[in-house]
Amino acid sequence: MTRIAIVGAGLIGRSWAVVFARAGMDVAAWDAEATVLAALEGEIAAMLREAGTPDADAIAARVTPATTMEAALDGADLVQESGPERIDLKRDLFARLDAAAAPETILASSSSALVPSLFSDGLAGAARCLVAHPVNPPHLVPVVELCPSPVTSSETMDRAEAIYRDAGQVPVRLSREIDGFVLNRLQAALLAEALRLVSEGVVSVEGLDDTVRHGLGRRWAFMGPMETIVLNAPGGAADYMLRYGPPMGKLAADAAGAEAFSDAAAALVAAAFPALADPPAIRARQAWRDGELAALDTHLRTRSTGD
Amino acid sequence: MTRIAIVGAGLIGRSWAVVFARAGMDVAAWDAEATVLAALEGEIAAMLREAGTPDADAIAARVTPATTMEAALDGADLVQESGPERIDLKRDLFARLDAAAAPETILASSSSALVPSLFSDGLAGAARCLVAHPVNPPHLVPVVELCPSPVTSSETMDRAEAIYRDAGQVPVRLSREIDGFVLNRLQAALLAEALRLVSEGVVSVEGLDDTVRHGLGRRWAFMGPMETIVLNAPGGAADYMLRYGPPMGKLAADAAGAEAFSDAAAALVAAAFPALADPPAIRARQAWRDGELAALDTHLRTRSTGD
Repeated sequence: MTRIAIVGAGLIGRSWAVVFARAGMDVAAWDAEATVLAALEGEIAAMLREAGTPDADAIAARVTPATTMEAALDGADLVQESGPERIDLKRDLFARLDAAAAPETILASSSSALVPSLFSDGLAGAARCLVAHPVNPPHLVPVVELCPSPVTSSETMDRAEAIYRDAGQVPVRLSREIDGFVLNRLQAALLAEALRLVSEGVVSVEGLDDTVRHGLGRRWAFMGPMETIVLNAPGGAADYMLRYGPPMGKLAADAAGAEAFSDAAAALVAAAFPALADPPAIRARQAWRDGELAALDTHLRTRSTGD
Repeated sequence: MTRIAIVGAGLIGRSWAVVFARAGMDVAAWDAEATVLAALEGEIAAMLREAGTPDADAIAARVTPATTMEAALDGADLVQESGPERIDLKRDLFARLDAAAAPETILASSSSALVPSLFSDGLAGAARCLVAHPVNPPHLVPVVELCPSPVTSSETMDRAEAIYRDAGQVPVRLSREIDGFVLNRLQAALLAEALRLVSEGVVSVEGLDDTVRHGLGRRWAFMGPMETIVLNAPGGAADYMLRYGPPMGKLAADAAGAEAFSDAAAALVAAAFPALADPPAIRARQAWRDGELAALDTHLRTRSTGD
């Protein structure tokens, strides 16, 4: 039986608890805030209800709140750390985790902003530390990026990959540290150009979103961009590059950079969503989004993807 | 009754014929190649069958092959031109269309590579010319980018937008000409970074595709990237920019450009899809893709999108 320790039981930690418990794993969860831990059972029940998961009671019963971090770590195969994204706090926490966890326990951080060497350098157990970056919320979006530091062992990476796969996620292994990992590097490149086109008035915010959700995003929900280009020329990838490499390269060379992430662009985006003007409205729409993610995940899992 | 003329009845023209006929419009189709026109009826029946469209016979009956271009144009509200992407051919064809079509007929090109001034400058009817760029195939992906030349009239844009909307598509209006329009500018920015990450060995081709299809692409299938960022911070777009603008800007500034579209990158991509090594295998996989696009479109249309 695989045992998982959740360290940090906020929004992301709770969703991770659902991922592992849903797959039949034993989960012990701890949070530095007693109120967060006290709310855990109710929050997990709500998440399972909203996602329409069968056997919700049995799944919820596999998640045990732990009163100390050490108790949560006891017997864990993998620690999923989802604490605050501050380098000083993350360094302290990983030092504590490394001191307290059994030597074979994998220490994985959900960090989206910090590469693993920043918080594991110099630890005795640095070889068992990595980043396992999810998309929020992981119980509705399966990808998890696995990023090693220069000293993370390949055995750690292999074991982590197997655990996430057993949990029903889609682990993607990076060969080395890189800021933003893969997902946010891709997102940043597209967002910069999107914000620029909106800022320059080429297209409205709504038109930009329509171009993606009724166009570009359709294929990317079930094929990646690499298979997309293979299928976009009669002779495959080499043929694509011959036909479209030069014009696409010209567009990429002309794409926007950091300057596109401006307050003026943010104001234009905000103005296009007048109904999402305060945190409660945003939370309600996030719940709608999560319902759509769950429905889309169900749809995609019922299709044969041919691979 | 809206009447549409399809000029160029290859892959894209045929799919356009299905779009308009499916919406109850009368469609006359012409192609310079007699063999293409002779195959039209069978190809349209096959497309409708593969897409699982009800009333296939009635829809197919609304598409009439025309023996001359002039006959196809007779009484047309809009011409959807889908000829070869060569500037000399496109200029000649638009001169012929402008001479032959009634003055109120809209002349729209499916071009993905040419902005409309390149083939409409100097024509008497330049004000009624635009690009209406679809994603292939338009009967399965609803977005259509409407790009005016500097002299296209706003009345032309209004009427074109209404016709595409009536046909069940999602028209996106650009305010002015720009190379690549919106969709391919966004795609090129993401593709460049994707090809770079694969070329540098940060991630495998399969891992890159998994990151998008099991992560980033999930939201973009039903929300655009703009609404995505509004929902990615508790306080909306301004809050997002405050929290994530600087790090995302740094990633965008570091993103790849034209150099990523290399033959070496194409070879890596091709090697990752050994089963797609020849045109027949690619055609079979395109048919699978189209089936998935149809299923996804059906799924998304049955959901309440909340707007």
